[in-house]
Amino acid sequence: MTTATRAAPVIALLSDFGYRDHYAGVMKGVIARIAPRVRIIDLTHGIPPQAIAAGALVLAQSWRNFPARTIFLAVVDPGVGTARLPIAIETRAGARFVGPDNGLLSLAAADAGVRRIVELKSPRFRPNDISSTFHGRDIFAPAAAWLARGTSIRALGPAFDKITALVLPEPSITARQIRGEVVYVDGFGNLITNIGATILARLAASFRTKPLSVRINGSVAIKIYRAYGDAPAGSSLATVGSFDLLEIAIRDANAAIHYRAQAGASVVVTAGRA
Amino acid sequence: MTTATRAAPVIALLSDFGYRDHYAGVMKGVIARIAPRVRIIDLTHGIPPQAIAAGALVLAQSWRNFPARTIFLAVVDPGVGTARLPIAIETRAGARFVGPDNGLLSLAAADAGVRRIVELKSPRFRPNDISSTFHGRDIFAPAAAWLARGTSIRALGPAFDKITALVLPEPSITARQIRGEVVYVDGFGNLITNIGATILARLAASFRTKPLSVRINGSVAIKIYRAYGDAPAGSSLATVGSFDLLEIAIRDANAAIHYRAQAGASVVVTAGRA
Amino acid sequence: MTTATRAAPVIALLSDFGYRDHYAGVMKGVIARIAPRVRIIDLTHGIPPQAIAAGALVLAQSWRNFPARTIFLAVVDPGVGTARLPIAIETRAGARFVGPDNGLLSLAAADAGVRRIVELKSPRFRPNDISSTFHGRDIFAPAAAWLARGTSIRALGPAFDKITALVLPEPSITARQIRGEVVYVDGFGNLITNIGATILARLAASFRTKPLSVRINGSVAIKIYRAYGDAPAGSSLATVGSFDLLEIAIRDANAAIHYRAQAGASVVVTAGRA
Repeated sequence: MTTATRAAPVIALLSDFGYRDHYAGVMKGVIARIAPRVRIIDLTHGIPPQAIAAGALVLAQSWRNFPARTIFLAVVDPGVGTARLPIAIETRAGARFVGPDNGLLSLAAADAGVRRIVELKSPRFRPNDISSTFHGRDIFAPAAAWLARGTSIRALGPAFDKITALVLPEPSITARQIRGEVVYVDGFGNLITNIGATILARLAASFRTKPLSVRINGSVAIKIYRAYGDAPAGSSLATVGSFDLLEIAIRDANAAIHYRAQAGASVVVTAGRA
Repeated sequence: MTTATRAAPVIALLSDFGYRDHYAGVMKGVIARIAPRVRIIDLTHGIPPQAIAAGALVLAQSWRNFPARTIFLAVVDPGVGTARLPIAIETRAGARFVGPDNGLLSLAAADAGVRRIVELKSPRFRPNDISSTFHGRDIFAPAAAWLARGTSIRALGPAFDKITALVLPEPSITARQIRGEVVYVDGFGNLITNIGATILARLAASFRTKPLSVRINGSVAIKIYRAYGDAPAGSSLATVGSFDLLEIAIRDANAAIHYRAQAGASVVVTAGRA
Repeated sequence: MTTATRAAPVIALLSDFGYRDHYAGVMKGVIARIAPRVRIIDLTHGIPPQAIAAGALVLAQSWRNFPARTIFLAVVDPGVGTARLPIAIETRAGARFVGPDNGLLSLAAADAGVRRIVELKSPRFRPNDISSTFHGRDIFAPAAAWLARGTSIRALGPAFDKITALVLPEPSITARQIRGEVVYVDGFGNLITNIGATILARLAASFRTKPLSVRINGSVAIKIYRAYGDAPAGSSLATVGSFDLLEIAIRDANAAIHYRAQAGASVVVTAGRA
């Protein structure tokens, strides 16, 4: 199929607004008002309330699946009305990100290669009458819509040096073990931790003869596999997943329910049987 | 960006169908069948079941954020199959509204300025084989889709005089206080009451030297602020919000949880300390 | 309205992914990447987890309401990573279905008239790098998108003889009664059983003078009506519904709550008062 007219750009929405209220719907109305031809796709509005880390991880895992020049409008914004700045980011991969500068955009933007960051404050594009509580409607949705219409990112506001990095709780590392925690539970009950692939590899390297094992909430030791599919059906496993972080899962079952674990649950990686 | 072809109109959907079932999806299929180029935006399907007042308030607060000629298809319809009539409304502001004549459309339509109302009964547009239980699919979605295709509202049925106004429970007013109730709890836990700005101003005028205060469920007195942002962080506040009704909120927290309040909770406004 | 350009095809999505996660959103991103002009409609992502029968019944009830050549992308897939094959189906009615061959597509496809079935395994359209757990993103969404772009179904893989039929639990039938069970509870609390119209008619025919009645979870006898609307307001009723299966409902109330019934609840049809 050849398309004579260029396809409209996509704006993909991610938020913690949920589905009960009209807040996500209103952002879509604002976009349609400014950019009537844009395509709007809900990535999800089900990020747990104010869970910046969960939103950042989900955005980082999802953006590559969208068309190259997609504009991601992401709003998980516990600090609305405070000092955190509203920003837009252009990346080398083509994706654009619009949202609060609170770490939410940082993983995905780093992954896509930051090329330019601006603070959203051009009076041309930012309405005077801004509510102190609904920047999704009043600042972020209009900025995303103007980008979709072809407005240059430079026209949205002055350049901005460096975005705020996502602050995950730091795991504590000793010679024999790593103590971390669950930072995100996905809808299948898989438990994503703050323990990255690099520190895991370092611990494994110092104990070459003893395999690493993982405990959560004082559970029995869970074996680390190279891939989810390598574990026997029905068994617990740990693996470095698509977030590049250690995950705990159970094949064909819900690890969050089985281990009664949620964000914040303690996770310990130990060399050997311990 | 110049758009050679005129953008397709938007149909925005609001209902109490929730997200578990296929009912909202089926309405969208029906629309796409009749009007393949129309843009469909979910405003929300999360209105509490059969809560006409909540739906009416949300529609009234949202319609201005959409493109000027948006068609709002709204279905919160406890009386489906009874005498309430299916209607469509054309407004001076350009917005159109389609749904049951049970008060659901009345706040938004009054706000947008009613120009013409019709009863949806033209045999040309209303299928013979109408289920007694799913008017969203069988009457309202087709009517919205034909409007989106450019069919005149007059072709959908005979003119209709006056729509049913939303009946909110009436607050009781004495010389010294107003007793009302919560009529809607939004997803942030803000408590919207049935106490309007006008009667509030009247009470304030008779007690010029004593500020008004608000109690909910027998709570301590809550101060009334001009705007949400005027209250100190973390504090309870009351304010006349975007519904033009008194709302009770807590800055950066959930008032519904804090005050254990839901729709129906008793609210008292008193002059002075009382 | 005449449309100079042919409207883009519709892809309608049904899954058990829910709305909390990004899985449904990611499928939409994949579709937009391959087929930028396609229209995506969420039929529902609220099918109960792994409930193939519920998904099959909902799909069978919904497909006729969509435009004729809609592509239904359906993913309820407890066996992902196992032997069940990924397939696409072309039907005489025009609708196309893409999903796992586990019974999910079988009711709708039979209803629409199967014309051609293929296994999704063409290397041209199936990426090498397939996750063992997310076939929705890696196999089904791309196949649906290529169909939407006009790729022939034959290009997606080799022909396939016969799809797996949905296996509903079989009711047990004696001379005097039918013992079945609830297979799906819809969002209004209506209880859809595995008792089909044909066996019901057979039982009724052998007891022409005695009307049939229904009991659920040991309830009092419930009368069978020709249509939902024939029962008195507020009363319990049983009827052969749009699934062509016996349903138990309460007019204007929730039968699932009233009878404390869910999928699996025992249902008995008896001739006469018994």
